[in-house]
Amino acid sequence: MASLGTVVPLQMHFDEALPLRSGASLRDYHLVYETYGTLNADRSNAVLVCHALNASHHVAGVHADDPKSEGWWNNLIGPGKPLDTDRFFVVCVNNPGSCFGSTGPMHDNPDTGRPYGADFPVVTVEDWVDAQARLLERLGIRRLAAVLGGSLGGMQALSWTLQYPDRMRHAVVVASAPNLSAQNIAFNEVARRAIVTDPDFHGGHFYAHGVLPKRGLRVARMIGHITYLSDDSMEAKFGRELRAAELAYSTQDIEFQIESYLRYQGDKFSEYFDANTYLLITRALDYFDPARAFGGDLSRALARAQAGFLVVSFTTDWRFSPLRSREIVKALVDNRRDVSYAEIDAPHGHDAFLLDDPRYHGVVRAYFERIAQEVGA
Amino acid sequence: MASLGTVVPLQMHFDEALPLRSGASLRDYHLVYETYGTLNADRSNAVLVCHALNASHHVAGVHADDPKSEGWWNNLIGPGKPLDTDRFFVVCVNNPGSCFGSTGPMHDNPDTGRPYGADFPVVTVEDWVDAQARLLERLGIRRLAAVLGGSLGGMQALSWTLQYPDRMRHAVVVASAPNLSAQNIAFNEVARRAIVTDPDFHGGHFYAHGVLPKRGLRVARMIGHITYLSDDSMEAKFGRELRAAELAYSTQDIEFQIESYLRYQGDKFSEYFDANTYLLITRALDYFDPARAFGGDLSRALARAQAGFLVVSFTTDWRFSPLRSREIVKALVDNRRDVSYAEIDAPHGHDAFLLDDPRYHGVVRAYFERIAQEVGA
Repeated sequence: MASLGTVVPLQMHFDEALPLRSGASLRDYHLVYETYGTLNADRSNAVLVCHALNASHHVAGVHADDPKSEGWWNNLIGPGKPLDTDRFFVVCVNNPGSCFGSTGPMHDNPDTGRPYGADFPVVTVEDWVDAQARLLERLGIRRLAAVLGGSLGGMQALSWTLQYPDRMRHAVVVASAPNLSAQNIAFNEVARRAIVTDPDFHGGHFYAHGVLPKRGLRVARMIGHITYLSDDSMEAKFGRELRAAELAYSTQDIEFQIESYLRYQGDKFSEYFDANTYLLITRALDYFDPARAFGGDLSRALARAQAGFLVVSFTTDWRFSPLRSREIVKALVDNRRDVSYAEIDAPHGHDAFLLDDPRYHGVVRAYFERIAQEVGA
Repeated sequence: MASLGTVVPLQMHFDEALPLRSGASLRDYHLVYETYGTLNADRSNAVLVCHALNASHHVAGVHADDPKSEGWWNNLIGPGKPLDTDRFFVVCVNNPGSCFGSTGPMHDNPDTGRPYGADFPVVTVEDWVDAQARLLERLGIRRLAAVLGGSLGGMQALSWTLQYPDRMRHAVVVASAPNLSAQNIAFNEVARRAIVTDPDFHGGHFYAHGVLPKRGLRVARMIGHITYLSDDSMEAKFGRELRAAELAYSTQDIEFQIESYLRYQGDKFSEYFDANTYLLITRALDYFDPARAFGGDLSRALARAQAGFLVVSFTTDWRFSPLRSREIVKALVDNRRDVSYAEIDAPHGHDAFLLDDPRYHGVVRAYFERIAQEVGA
């Protein structure tokens, strides 16, 4: 299948302050986003794609200055692909607080003229959805054909159905959960402690010190990476394979290939990811919990949703297991909503949602085919 | 049931160097140990208990100077308990490299007169077993009635059956595995990276700098703690419970009870556990793999074992899952060895092996009853 080819990030500035769930607000901010395909005459074929922790607005295609910069969901989105850009107009917005272009902790705080750092206001999934809705309004999109997201992106898709039920037709929620479990929060908290206790973090104002809390970011990423992979896929890929023919008998040198792989992932991540962004995004994950306002009753929480739903989970995903997706499905069924559910037998753990699995992509393709017919795309 | 009451740690010095698997040796070392009960006339009722990562020779009873210092397996071992000290003579040895009394990284290196620190030789499960065997020889114990251990202690019990098959009758291997999986190694590696990249680690020679790498130890312990508990028990105990009535909207303050609990565990651990010991013991875990010398064939590896076996696992243990215990059982059955296997339905994850579960304790009690009859205890 053809790829989108070269795509160009766009930017939109917002003068009007964005009120946040914390009580603070974000003023004088900009959002970076990309669009693929063409908005049709009745503006009915727009699909919003929401990104997760370590991703950006750059979902598909490549940037001209870097032919290797393939978008993170390039296997799913493009001409003739499951989300077909020949039929749909696809929008992906970099969320505020991110480190990939939209206003975030490394940008100047208009109140002080210095980088926000740790003073960047705490943002929630709901705040991001508000920011996305504003941008779509500016683009003249009144009603989305669908909102699609995986993991934290799936939480945004779910939140859209509650915050803007009349501005969307469908939600596609992949490898997600209605909230984080205690274990999920625990892993986030360890990662955050690794970052904030790194002496180079300087209380979140490391920019002014000319250093980066790379030690903490490395540890955070290594922990994250373990939770993205299944036990089985790690075993199949690395097992107990040694790096050298003989044991070195060292506590600090690399002995096993899995150590080498994790260190590499951690090093790479610490070069490009912002520590304050890591704190903000993991906190947004922790906070997301639409059932909280309903005493923990997800069925009551989802009563407002009007969208049609496709929910997808992966058997070996232990970060957001199929059980968590089924909670969403059950709550929707309790409300007699239109919901399709697919549990994909895939070995890759949470990462499966980013991979090219024919059954998974077949399900998404079929669902978007249905949406295309509905909106005449 | 009665407890053992006050118990006293003993110490034994060894002039003869202990050769280690790494090729190095440990010279001029001492071992701290405890014994409970009485060795019978024909010296047939001795049981060796092997300790895991965060434990010591102090298995049962209390120390006189601290009435709260209950031994770590006090619910299992004592008068009338499943391992009955009225019938058996119980010995537990603190392994070299530990930070609880036996020669370890904080003791002086006889070659330099300064603390070993990171220069303490890398020790393996096999080395520990050799050290234990020497101590038992000095105590005049030619043949053990049983070797018992949980987790890393279970690996030592298993290794005993291969290193000294004629010096033991039974092995009780609880919540253990024939080796670490890639995921197990990965978690160990993240913990080690957190420790060695803490600027206060000073390459393992922090004693000379008057500091402790507490940041790294905290993170290491938090990671460990997550893997000791089951997802379900964490959910039941903490769930998404908040510490305060309202969200604070902070990335660094505690919002959830699980965060508070983990930070507390990390802080406590960093006050008493030695960073070099943490590296050494996690490495001993990584290295243990009796099947390696047999091309990964555990059945061939266990052909040397002569002991009777009790293997116990816990359904919700995801650190060392029942599947790993079944690998041991299968390899023993392949060799037509005498093996009993119990898979205990317990909600507590890996920690279950330390808890007082009636079914689990019933199985252990019955097995030691059988051993008692065999040896006339």
